[in-house]
Formats: sequence, structure tokens, C-alpha cells
Amino acid sequence: VKRPFIALITDFGEDDYFVASLKGVILRINPGARIIDVTHQVPSFDIRQGSFTLFSCYKYFPPRTIFLVIIDPGVGSSRPILLVKTKKYFFVAPDNGVLSLTLKSEEVEQIIKITNKKFFLEKQSKTFEGRDKMAPVAAWLSKGTSPLLFGPPVQDYKALDKLEPIRKEREIIGSIIYADKFGNLITNIPRTMVNKLKKEAGKSKLTLLTKNKKISSFRESYSQGRRGELFYLVGSLGFIEIATREASASRKIKAKVSDTVKIVIRSPREKVIAKEK
Amino acid sequence: VKRPFIALITDFGEDDYFVASLKGVILRINPGARIIDVTHQVPSFDIRQGSFTLFSCYKYFPPRTIFLVIIDPGVGSSRPILLVKTKKYFFVAPDNGVLSLTLKSEEVEQIIKITNKKFFLEKQSKTFEGRDKMAPVAAWLSKGTSPLLFGPPVQDYKALDKLEPIRKEREIIGSIIYADKFGNLITNIPRTMVNKLKKEAGKSKLTLLTKNKKISSFRESYSQGRRGELFYLVGSLGFIEIATREASASRKIKAKVSDTVKIVIRSPREKVIAKEK
Amino acid sequence: VKRPFIALITDFGEDDYFVASLKGVILRINPGARIIDVTHQVPSFDIRQGSFTLFSCYKYFPPRTIFLVIIDPGVGSSRPILLVKTKKYFFVAPDNGVLSLTLKSEEVEQIIKITNKKFFLEKQSKTFEGRDKMAPVAAWLSKGTSPLLFGPPVQDYKALDKLEPIRKEREIIGSIIYADKFGNLITNIPRTMVNKLKKEAGKSKLTLLTKNKKISSFRESYSQGRRGELFYLVGSLGFIEIATREASASRKIKAKVSDTVKIVIRSPREKVIAKEK
Repeated sequence: VKRPFIALITDFGEDDYFVASLKGVILRINPGARIIDVTHQVPSFDIRQGSFTLFSCYKYFPPRTIFLVIIDPGVGSSRPILLVKTKKYFFVAPDNGVLSLTLKSEEVEQIIKITNKKFFLEKQSKTFEGRDKMAPVAAWLSKGTSPLLFGPPVQDYKALDKLEPIRKEREIIGSIIYADKFGNLITNIPRTMVNKLKKEAGKSKLTLLTKNKKISSFRESYSQGRRGELFYLVGSLGFIEIATREASASRKIKAKVSDTVKIVIRSPREKVIAKEK
Repeated sequence: VKRPFIALITDFGEDDYFVASLKGVILRINPGARIIDVTHQVPSFDIRQGSFTLFSCYKYFPPRTIFLVIIDPGVGSSRPILLVKTKKYFFVAPDNGVLSLTLKSEEVEQIIKITNKKFFLEKQSKTFEGRDKMAPVAAWLSKGTSPLLFGPPVQDYKALDKLEPIRKEREIIGSIIYADKFGNLITNIPRTMVNKLKKEAGKSKLTLLTKNKKISSFRESYSQGRRGELFYLVGSLGFIEIATREASASRKIKAKVSDTVKIVIRSPREKVIAKEK
Repeated sequence: VKRPFIALITDFGEDDYFVASLKGVILRINPGARIIDVTHQVPSFDIRQGSFTLFSCYKYFPPRTIFLVIIDPGVGSSRPILLVKTKKYFFVAPDNGVLSLTLKSEEVEQIIKITNKKFFLEKQSKTFEGRDKMAPVAAWLSKGTSPLLFGPPVQDYKALDKLEPIRKEREIIGSIIYADKFGNLITNIPRTMVNKLKKEAGKSKLTLLTKNKKISSFRESYSQGRRGELFYLVGSLGFIEIATREASASRKIKAKVSDTVKIVIRSPREKVIAKEK
């Protein structure tokens, strides 16, 4: 087995026969494959959340891992299925943008449009191409099959709109991109951007604003926060996170994905404004 | 390892110590075993749903896979535990009907009533025979132990009532047998039956009726449907499914397992009736 | 691979990138490691529930299994991370009491405070030490690295308050320590304690009291109970459990973890009291 690890990311849930079918198909073709479940709990049809989940963990996997990413609202349509080879990894996914966040951080070497029916299951449905086309391709790839055998090279892949924070004069305008199981709210604002703003602020301090809340406490870790207090910190992906100690910030401030988050340099006047509210 | 794959289907959920105990027991007996989780989310005690889950994916697994199927409301009672060998697979399960849907599609070679205590854990509870009896048997089986060593051959296994659709003059009367994570409603009506009815219909069209809804759109794939529209299609198991694009048909029409579904040949008069409603 | 099995218990859930990150880190360091998910559904920050989950299944795992137990509300603080070697197993966990219930039943051979940065990921966050420190240590340990190389030996680990039942004159006073997926309520009262009380009771019978309910039926297994009836039995861990047939006792009596449970010798007078209520 040359590329033994196949990592699965889907929106299939874990209740049905979907995930098991993928695994069965893979192991029938390559009994030596080692399958790792990343998650199957991506919200149904949510390409953006799936793309973030992939992005947030793929770097930690062994080189040559094959990521099989099936969030595929267009199943059965003419949207292509891609195999992308980067310097370190392989990705098999529908061409709907789910890979774009990750591929921007990787050195892309080859993009193949998967078309060679030889590698598909004999009977094919129009509603489960994950099982009938993508899983077998991942399995053959894990056995060492050359990417070029699966179909013709293509030039590009579909990209999602960028969700990058905007840097303005005395502030950063970003948004919430993910709420985790603990209710921590992950923003798209990288630590580095905040560090720069902090430098410019000199003696003034920074404040995070979201959902009519003004969050001034910056903490190093969750356990440094006081109970009941909202604070922000640098999360494990290097992005600013809003959190509260041993409770759900998401529930506390009723924020959700795509809500706006600003980080601003606090002016002396600002305190007064805060009181007026 | 002669039969390395052990696939687990249970109603244990994933929160408790149940599944981990099965895995520990298996790996202590056969460290070379490779365990695949089919699902542990079968609704508690729901033999019929468990039987469908097994049926819907087992064919995709490698030959000689051992399916350990534990939906077992009768645990601790005198209901037998069976080991069934078919031409391609092995099944270990309580004899309560959970295997019947699958075994009807398989060539059964041997049915063994598991009784040989030599293969059970030393300490046995009356409430977790999955851990104390079935998991060890599956593990020993995976090491190559002959089925006959686990107990005496028996003639039969318990079968669930058949849930097959009825073919009438100008219609098929079936029912919903499964609602998946996306809210697609899977019926027991096979594609082949509908194709036949379609032929007989000649120039008339077919309509699906359920829960006071008349569904006339037939689509090839989910993404072919218009948003908001209810339609039916052939699902990935070859059965008719009711769906709606990127949303839950189950929620939309408040249908559930065992609700009746008819597919009828539409008569010219029918349109009038539809309008009168 | 000398210690191939790494068993994971966390409160991370299965929706996010947390568990996948642990697995990626482990497999990048030791591609031969075999990872087993015990559960990731421990309630957030709930050290006591996590400690019970570990305790309830660890004995069934193969010798030399490494348990990576991450319920870690103190992440990023100065709380130590421990590696504990017992006669049969290894445990890697924050020193917050999550191991204590298990270690009391094991022969502890070595307690190491993990400090050697050589084994950590290069970039370290303050919010995900499971990924950055504990997972790599477990992976190196699985490759055969000697425990002493991870840091200095220490004398002790943090222990949770004991939750043992109290034996009084004619009764046992215990509590509910776990509610499983089926709604069975597991108490901390061991079978042996009840057997002793039963002996002392002579001709009198025992009754279980909780939440204003008097439960007199004792059953051998779930399926022995009558539908709708509350009963108690000896569960698969050897503790007294409150259950009801094919339904949730937890929902039925609205009991939850830490509610008091008494088992008393029924006196003739008691029947009268029951009627007066």
C-alpha cells in the first residue's frame, strides 16, 4: 500500500448506510486501506462549513493522505468530480468550491477531472456518486494508481468567495466563520493582523465588537477567563476566537456564522459612548 | 488473519461505554481484527430499522466480512444468538429477525446456534451479551475458528413480516421504510415495479400519493428538482424515494416510517379531482 | 509497533476538527498506530462523567493499550499533563482527576509529569494541548519510547472525591452516577453490597427508593421486566441499575446524575406508609 490513509469528510451523518457504503467500497478494492473519519457531521449541503473543517485539520495528517470530501448538493448533475494532487496530499471531491480554502494554502501539482468509468462501480446511481464514483477512485488511488489514469488534467477548480477580514484605518472588520462544539466562536481574523493593529494602537487598547457587545478582555487560554466573562483569545488555528469559561459564548451572545466582528482601537471617547448606550 | 473485517451495527449510540467494550473485547482476542463502524445510531430496540441498515450496505463490503448486529431488546432472555454463514459473509446477531431482510438476498450455507461457553467471556452479565458473548464469538470467527465449533447447526432463523409493496390493477401500494439524514423518504417500492407500471400506463403519466399529497414530478437526481418542489426519484438502493432539493421532504410533508405510499396511473379525470380539492 | 492501540476519550464531539487533528498527529508520528474511539461525547468539561466512561470499559482492552483521555477544562493553565503506567495499561491525561476512578483499580507503576518539549509539536497553542502535546506523546509512547523520557516521575495524581455508597443499619444510601443512551440509570451501589443487605433482611424484602418512587421489582434482565414497570437489576458493570422495559427509566422518573438512591429493608409498617401517601 503506497498511500494507505483515506480521510473522510462528509455531510452524511452517522445514522444511515452512507458512510458504511463508502468504507465497504474502499476496503473491497483495497483491503489494506486505512480509513480515518474526519467528520460526517458537516451541516447538510454546507459547502463552506465543509471547506473550513478540511482546512482546519488536513495539515496534521501524514503525507500522501487521500482526503475524500463529499459535500455534494449537485450530485447527479454535470458538476465535475476532481482529483487534486498537491505537493503533500491528494483530494477527491466534487468541484463545488469545497476544496478551495485548502488548495490556496497548498502547492497544487495536478488537477484531474475524474471521468474514467473503468474505476467506477458497475451499477451507478444518480444520487450517491460518493459511493459509486468517488470512493472507488480514492481506493484505487490508495493502491498507487497514477492520477492521470482517472481522467484528463484540467486547469482550474471552483473557488468560493474569499471571506477575508478587511483592514481599515483603526480597525479590522471580519466575521464569525465557525462555532465549535463548546460554543467558541472562531473568526476569520488571524492573530498576525491583530498583533499589527496592537502595535499601531500604542498605549491605547483593543476592543472586539460583535452583536452589540463590547469585549475588552483578551486572554491567553480558556481557563484564564473569569467565569461568566466574555473574552477573546487566539484559538488553536491561529484565528481570533470569542469564548467564555466552561460555557458557550455562542449561546451567551446568540452569535452565528457570518455575523460581523470588529476589532477596534479603543479611543478615550469610546468609553463615554459606551455609557450613553 | 483470515477474515479480518468485523462490521458493527448496533443501537448503542456513541456516548456510552458499550461500543468501546465491544471493540476492546474483539481486539484483545484478535489484535489483527479490523473493526468498521456501520452505525450505532439505530433507534433503540428498533429491529426493523436495524435490519434495513444492514441490508442497505452489506453488499458493498469485502467478502468474508463478519457483521456483528446487536439490536437486542431480548438480551438476557432465552432468545438464541445465531451465527449465519452465507456464501460471501458471516453474521452474528440475536435471533429476532434483524438478519432476515438480508438473508433473503443471500445464499445461506450454515445457521449455528451459538452455545459454546468456551468462547464467551468468563464473567457474564445478563444485560450485555453483545460484550460477553457476541463480540468474543465474532473475534474468534475472525481468527479463523470454524463456525461449527460455536454450537449446533439449526434449520431456521426468525423472519420479520415482509414489507413488500402490493401490485394492484392500476397502482402500486407501498410504504415508507426509512427516512435518511437529509429527510429523503425511502419507500419499499423498487424501480423495476414502477417501470412496469409505466409501460402499462402508455400515454398516461404516474403520480405518487402520500399524506394527502400528490407528487407528479419524477426527477433523475436531487439537483434536478426545483427548490421547494416535492418530487420522487430512484434512490441509491434502487427504491423509489420522495425528496425535495437541498431540504427535508420528511419535514415538509410530515411523513414517517410505515406511512402508506401509492403510485397510480393518472387518469384524465384525476386532474379535475385535484382542482376540486 | 510495540504498543499499537491508542484509545481516545474526549469531550470534543464529532462535528469539529478536534478529533481529526488528534488522529492526524498520531498517525504522522506513528503510521502503524491503531486508533480506537472510545467516545467523544463526554459532556463538555465533565471530568466525572469522563472518568466513569474510562472506568467502565478500559478493562476490556488489550494489554499495553494507551488511553488518551482529554477532558481538559484547564487547558493552557499550569495543571500538569500526566503519563501513568500501570501494570497493564498506559494513560495520558491532564492531572484533573479524570484518571482517579480507574487508577484506584489498577496497579500503578509509574507517574510521569510530561514536560519534555522534544515530543511536542513545534508550534503550540494555549487552547489545544490535546493536539499539540498529548497526542504526540501518546504516539511516541506507542512507538516504544520509554515513559521516563517524557519528564520527571512524580508521586501522586489528583483524585476526585469518592462517590461511594454509605452502608447504614438497614439501608444503603447511594446515588445515580450515569444515565445511558437507553435511559437506564446506573447507581454507585455494587451488587455485592446489596447481596449482603439481602442476607441480613432474612424474610423481609428490599426496596429501592429514589425521586419519591418506591421500586420493589428486582429483575435479572431488561426483557424480564413487564412493559411500563420500573424495576432494578444488576447492570453490566456490576452496579445496581434502574430500568424499564424498552423505554427510558430516566425520562419516566425524571432522575439524573447525583440524585440519591436508597436501598432499604422493607418493614411490614412500610406498606402502610406507602398507602398513606
